[in-house]
Amino acid sequence: MPTDFQQLAERLPEWVEASRAYALKGRVASYIPGLAHAPQQALGITLCHLSGASVTAGDCGMRFTLQSISKVFTLLLALMDRGEQAVFEKVGMEPTGDDFNSMLKLELVEPGKPFNPLINAGAIVISSLIEGRTPEEKADRIVRFVRELAGGDTSIGINADVYRSEASTANRNRSLAYFLKDNNVLDEEVEPTLDVYFRQCSIETTCSQVARMALVLANGGIDPATGRELVPRRYVRIAKSFMVTCGMYNASGEFAIQVGIPAKSGVSGGILALVPGELGIGLIGPALNEKGNSIAGVHLLQQLSERYDWSIF
Amino acid sequence: MPTDFQQLAERLPEWVEASRAYALKGRVASYIPGLAHAPQQALGITLCHLSGASVTAGDCGMRFTLQSISKVFTLLLALMDRGEQAVFEKVGMEPTGDDFNSMLKLELVEPGKPFNPLINAGAIVISSLIEGRTPEEKADRIVRFVRELAGGDTSIGINADVYRSEASTANRNRSLAYFLKDNNVLDEEVEPTLDVYFRQCSIETTCSQVARMALVLANGGIDPATGRELVPRRYVRIAKSFMVTCGMYNASGEFAIQVGIPAKSGVSGGILALVPGELGIGLIGPALNEKGNSIAGVHLLQQLSERYDWSIF
Amino acid sequence: MPTDFQQLAERLPEWVEASRAYALKGRVASYIPGLAHAPQQALGITLCHLSGASVTAGDCGMRFTLQSISKVFTLLLALMDRGEQAVFEKVGMEPTGDDFNSMLKLELVEPGKPFNPLINAGAIVISSLIEGRTPEEKADRIVRFVRELAGGDTSIGINADVYRSEASTANRNRSLAYFLKDNNVLDEEVEPTLDVYFRQCSIETTCSQVARMALVLANGGIDPATGRELVPRRYVRIAKSFMVTCGMYNASGEFAIQVGIPAKSGVSGGILALVPGELGIGLIGPALNEKGNSIAGVHLLQQLSERYDWSIF
Amino acid sequence: MPTDFQQLAERLPEWVEASRAYALKGRVASYIPGLAHAPQQALGITLCHLSGASVTAGDCGMRFTLQSISKVFTLLLALMDRGEQAVFEKVGMEPTGDDFNSMLKLELVEPGKPFNPLINAGAIVISSLIEGRTPEEKADRIVRFVRELAGGDTSIGINADVYRSEASTANRNRSLAYFLKDNNVLDEEVEPTLDVYFRQCSIETTCSQVARMALVLANGGIDPATGRELVPRRYVRIAKSFMVTCGMYNASGEFAIQVGIPAKSGVSGGILALVPGELGIGLIGPALNEKGNSIAGVHLLQQLSERYDWSIF
Repeated sequence: MPTDFQQLAERLPEWVEASRAYALKGRVASYIPGLAHAPQQALGITLCHLSGASVTAGDCGMRFTLQSISKVFTLLLALMDRGEQAVFEKVGMEPTGDDFNSMLKLELVEPGKPFNPLINAGAIVISSLIEGRTPEEKADRIVRFVRELAGGDTSIGINADVYRSEASTANRNRSLAYFLKDNNVLDEEVEPTLDVYFRQCSIETTCSQVARMALVLANGGIDPATGRELVPRRYVRIAKSFMVTCGMYNASGEFAIQVGIPAKSGVSGGILALVPGELGIGLIGPALNEKGNSIAGVHLLQQLSERYDWSIF
Repeated sequence: MPTDFQQLAERLPEWVEASRAYALKGRVASYIPGLAHAPQQALGITLCHLSGASVTAGDCGMRFTLQSISKVFTLLLALMDRGEQAVFEKVGMEPTGDDFNSMLKLELVEPGKPFNPLINAGAIVISSLIEGRTPEEKADRIVRFVRELAGGDTSIGINADVYRSEASTANRNRSLAYFLKDNNVLDEEVEPTLDVYFRQCSIETTCSQVARMALVLANGGIDPATGRELVPRRYVRIAKSFMVTCGMYNASGEFAIQVGIPAKSGVSGGILALVPGELGIGLIGPALNEKGNSIAGVHLLQQLSERYDWSIF
Repeated sequence: MPTDFQQLAERLPEWVEASRAYALKGRVASYIPGLAHAPQQALGITLCHLSGASVTAGDCGMRFTLQSISKVFTLLLALMDRGEQAVFEKVGMEPTGDDFNSMLKLELVEPGKPFNPLINAGAIVISSLIEGRTPEEKADRIVRFVRELAGGDTSIGINADVYRSEASTANRNRSLAYFLKDNNVLDEEVEPTLDVYFRQCSIETTCSQVARMALVLANGGIDPATGRELVPRRYVRIAKSFMVTCGMYNASGEFAIQVGIPAKSGVSGGILALVPGELGIGLIGPALNEKGNSIAGVHLLQQLSERYDWSIF
Repeated sequence: MPTDFQQLAERLPEWVEASRAYALKGRVASYIPGLAHAPQQALGITLCHLSGASVTAGDCGMRFTLQSISKVFTLLLALMDRGEQAVFEKVGMEPTGDDFNSMLKLELVEPGKPFNPLINAGAIVISSLIEGRTPEEKADRIVRFVRELAGGDTSIGINADVYRSEASTANRNRSLAYFLKDNNVLDEEVEPTLDVYFRQCSIETTCSQVARMALVLANGGIDPATGRELVPRRYVRIAKSFMVTCGMYNASGEFAIQVGIPAKSGVSGGILALVPGELGIGLIGPALNEKGNSIAGVHLLQQLSERYDWSIF
């Protein structure tokens, strides 16, 4: 049963306001100023339909950085740059059950490679696989790829303040990267690799831009506006699989049950989600639940999924 | 694109023979005689279509015990007996990244409840939630539920030899159960609970029976022959979500990418799988890969999924 | 410089009262009634000198169960029954850094045998090595050994209430024992082995009895009253080494630095300690610090060790 | 019973040759060229007696770097520079049971500070506590302290090749240091701190120099030649306690039982050991056992300890 987009569009503001109340129970990430200043009660969403229609509600003008959402795009780009075999020699395909920045399995489970590309250790390795001679060149390729997915929106760029803050507060990520280096999983140098990683996390967008990117994935990698294949379908499938099994940190299993659509969250409170063959979704809600996902955002997606029967399960 | 069942049926024997070669690289489970005597090179599969058609190939006469496949059925029965809230007070919804019989997260992650119902610790708790005054009564209800899903096939029962062997070699499961008891996660007594667990693992079936059970799940809980709802759709959805995120042990993520359908494997080499809205699949291939899944069986499912585009992703 | 025992004897009541104040900051173990009813502020100590002199102060009439202190005696008895090689095939010699009832290293570190005989897992294995056809016979041999070390004091016996309580609240120990059984480290049956373990934990003594036992160890295994060798010197040395490296749970390293004498504590608040070649010490102070050792007792021993320069380091 | 030094001196060459045979079963560390080129079968030892006598046997001309042996000296210097309280705010006093370079407890055990100063994480923190404005100045103070302990031997210095190799192969240590930085345990910058650490590891000595340093510790911190207190007795006691509980990596417990004297080993195959009140010992034997200690060296020390009854237990 396809989503009644007309009805959804009409009722969306009401859904948003109902979910916004949950933001009070969450906490805005505070480890860098660029995140800490986000308004606790903000909640905004854009849904783009394959037909070209789109709808937006709540605080949609708000700009936010992709943070971990970027891991989906670097995974896709690394697959396109290097191919499946090269990528999966360096990262695994399994959920971990541990924190996103945990080092436990790197030490405990042979051969010490990251379990998947959506935890920090895996994403750092993925960043090292992006083609480019310098961190700037690699980051530039990522930005251009993201812009392309967003329909060629050149207003998307790196937030320099956030980037600098990320780089200066990243000792846990440095620790992860040197561990990977020691395990011979990371072939590139640590600091240039982390530089790419911090830049990708700092790409600044809006809900509607993220929704537009998600729409391409919902369409199997083909830009619905131009009909051009931006990502091979096989790689979109891989990304969607990871989004379902590991996209929402250690609440991915619960999200699969309660919402049931591929999604990836970031510490900024952003969520990229999609209803395959139908909708791309971009969402921002800075207040996070204890698992690190937008508390009001998850509630909103759950309400919509139940109402419009979006679950792929 | 719906599966071309006619073509699949014609070519199935050929697919089976091509995959059977992989069995030589695997190892048959040997911890109890009832499993150790299974033929290394056996491979059999049955697919049941919603239309009522079915096809079978390979060693389909072979009888095997459900083992961990039973965890899907006890989860469903516990949900029907107790409701979602009571079940998820006792087990979580997340993949673990650890071995199926690991105790690490029970000790390390508060509040010490099993991460999901498909690892041993979780399945033991689930067994304790099945209604019934005695282990025999609980096991009897499980058997009757399984028979019902198999279209009322009363030939399905418990293999007494396997049950006795399970019970006498189950010290790791006893250790898990006493740990759960100590954590106040298991309310029932340990030995009666384990007795239920060993019985459910020892339910003996064939490929075609498992395929028939899977067909009900592929049909959202409704028996396609009678139109009767055997399981509420919501619970089927929950079960399918778990099968995707945790159904194939620590290879669930890879299976999601390479095959992309809900499935649950057992140490006997059995696999229950399903293509939503289309097919129920039962498979046996006793030789296991290093992750504990039927090595030839996984290969066969991957070939079929690629050929007929089954992936839900 | 030998301890000025005369001066120590005169000033001991004063030392005891000064340390007793610390008991208010501790917590009495509460998992069984037999422990929970112990008076929070109690503190008693006896010191026995090799010369035959002894001194007692504080609440020395108080009876308490040996609990983990018994692990020293079963280690000695197992060494005498089986010899070093047989014992150390089953348990290691290393401190763990984990909780006394942890299962982490059993799962994570090959070959899955307990790191040392003073953690629960190790002590359970040791109990299984005591000679005797039945748990009663084994426990009886332990009691007789303990009485012998206490100078033939036949008033020492098992507190039946505590024994019953231990047996009925021991699910974590059952979990450990079945894990060891599964790892093929425990050759005996689980329940009879645990029965011995619960009995040894429930041996009831007083400070002066414990001090008298410790005196034999301080004298290298020879009863100073009779000149008879009750334990071979080599085994006393092994026991003292373990007491220094693992005797005070996860505060053993700190105790080595701050007190510097071989000691073993129990959850009852008892401590057995010794100054080699000089003194046997028995102490009771039920209020425990966060590491599980008698809070006032550790303070008292530290004061005495500093004043009389007892540290072996 | 004091050691019969005259007899020991006469028979030492024979003891050395008997132990040398064990070197064939060990492996020379190979992660940097400066270690990898050490001769597998080398074994040398010097014992310095408090009387001023000394004896040497085997390959005593061989120069080797202190590696982890230096951790004892930086601990002492940090205690002298900062005092006990400041040091133990940053590192604990407990053995870990984990590998010397493990990160497990930093992640799993609150508050994430290193368990003791002799594992890498702890030693890195200790290096950061040495007074000095620059890494060079800090390292220079360490070298001068070590020379002073060696009787003012100015031939002791840093091996520049080893230092450079250490610095370029130290990704695991970098990972540890950034983790400590992230945990707010390390106050100084990572790279300057590691620079000190690599320099201290690269201090080059001989057996007789190490034996002379150990002699000062055996004498409670007082240089036996000059009568001058080089280290306060209390700090020597702390160092000796750590050497017994954690000095020989994860074989410290076994070494305490089988040899029973304070000792610290290094990956170069060096061992510093001492018999309190009697002897300082320096030993080199590059072939290591599986726990990382000189295989022939440990055998030799065990033989000598048994023969001359050195155990403090």
